[in-house]
Amino acid sequence: MEAYGRFLYAGEIHEGFFELHGDRKNGMVLFDGLEFPSQAVKFLPPVKPTKLICVGVNYRDHADEFGKSVPEEPIIFMKPESAVIGDGDVIIFPPQSERVDYEGELAVVISKKCKNVSKDDAPDFILGYTCFNDVTARDLQFKDGQWTRGKSFDTFAPLGPYIVQSVNPLDLMIRTYLNRKVVQASRTSNMVFDSFTLLEFISSIMTLKKGDVIATGTPSGVGALKPGDVVEVEIEGIGVLSNFVAKI
Amino acid sequence: MEAYGRFLYAGEIHEGFFELHGDRKNGMVLFDGLEFPSQAVKFLPPVKPTKLICVGVNYRDHADEFGKSVPEEPIIFMKPESAVIGDGDVIIFPPQSERVDYEGELAVVISKKCKNVSKDDAPDFILGYTCFNDVTARDLQFKDGQWTRGKSFDTFAPLGPYIVQSVNPLDLMIRTYLNRKVVQASRTSNMVFDSFTLLEFISSIMTLKKGDVIATGTPSGVGALKPGDVVEVEIEGIGVLSNFVAKI
Repeated sequence: MEAYGRFLYAGEIHEGFFELHGDRKNGMVLFDGLEFPSQAVKFLPPVKPTKLICVGVNYRDHADEFGKSVPEEPIIFMKPESAVIGDGDVIIFPPQSERVDYEGELAVVISKKCKNVSKDDAPDFILGYTCFNDVTARDLQFKDGQWTRGKSFDTFAPLGPYIVQSVNPLDLMIRTYLNRKVVQASRTSNMVFDSFTLLEFISSIMTLKKGDVIATGTPSGVGALKPGDVVEVEIEGIGVLSNFVAKI
Repeated sequence: MEAYGRFLYAGEIHEGFFELHGDRKNGMVLFDGLEFPSQAVKFLPPVKPTKLICVGVNYRDHADEFGKSVPEEPIIFMKPESAVIGDGDVIIFPPQSERVDYEGELAVVISKKCKNVSKDDAPDFILGYTCFNDVTARDLQFKDGQWTRGKSFDTFAPLGPYIVQSVNPLDLMIRTYLNRKVVQASRTSNMVFDSFTLLEFISSIMTLKKGDVIATGTPSGVGALKPGDVVEVEIEGIGVLSNFVAKI
């Protein structure tokens, strides 16, 4: 498969389009005429976004889970770039919270600066799709009313492992695994506002730039993480974003 | 006075510490051994933040104005870097809103990467202070519940004109003028959480980087802008941030 990302091999960072041949754990990464054994490659966050715009309550089943009605228009919030980590990195459980949840999501990555993009033109401004975990200190989210604090701790935005163009974002299987057990399972076709509609809506508000990320919301089945857990977000045709949880 | 900022003169951008001698409109900017007539200088946003963290309901009088109680802990939200404009730039009234408000604020600018800064150490991580206008589509803020959309339109984060170190952020006069008439007038000593406490609180959540901005909340007297207005935020010892409003 072809993908876009950033990876570390032998102390050097490579960035761009590459081919992944064979299995992720046992294949080869072909980049710029070179071959790297994929098990020796560490995938980094595939982009450095200037902003991450997230969408709340965007799956009907997740709205039901929280007793919320489906909104008329997308509800957006932001996570800071300082929260981004990559595949294999550690989610740090902050001392301020007693309840930190996973939220598996499809992320849309922007390919070039844009404003007021129509839904029909949206694909022209998308670099591709990747996995995202909208890690949330649920207690602080509810306490504050505004969601920013509970969603903005360092390490609360796992993104990756890499970006894939050749998938249809309107109908992909998405699953989250907690300690290898499926805890979320849905299809992106269950979104209230699909990826292209979200890009139209968000770009009518703000200028998006290359590498910016739209996180499209989570299906039902959100739940708590605890130190020692491994949490994985898997999206059909893209791959698996895997992170550990630790307390320091 | 000494200040830090970015300015345009004769097609070139200069960035760093400079001396401003005499009046802003009729003085001289001394930078790197050169002299520039201040009336020929265009001040740009003084930094390019990786994030702007804003604080809601942080003056007792503004809490009263909205019938809100003073929060136990700061309520934070973010504005995207794409919203930042400088002194003299135009605030664009977006078609989605029928009610866009000014909110004059003191902005704290971070000097270096930091995490978990104590209140006492806060001054060591502050580059200085400047004026900020937390422009807000009030109708969308209330409609969404989450504040992000209403606060994130392009041009909704006027910042500047430049950053000043030698002021005491704990007690500065702050005034907003709408078409030359005073509409907000308070002192930063009326904040619920002062600048140093905010830096401690926010840096306990996220890593801050050089140029990041903490907007410390607005006093009472917020009100509507309309196309054709001029809005100015003046802070004692710093200067005046002046912007026009237009509809496109």
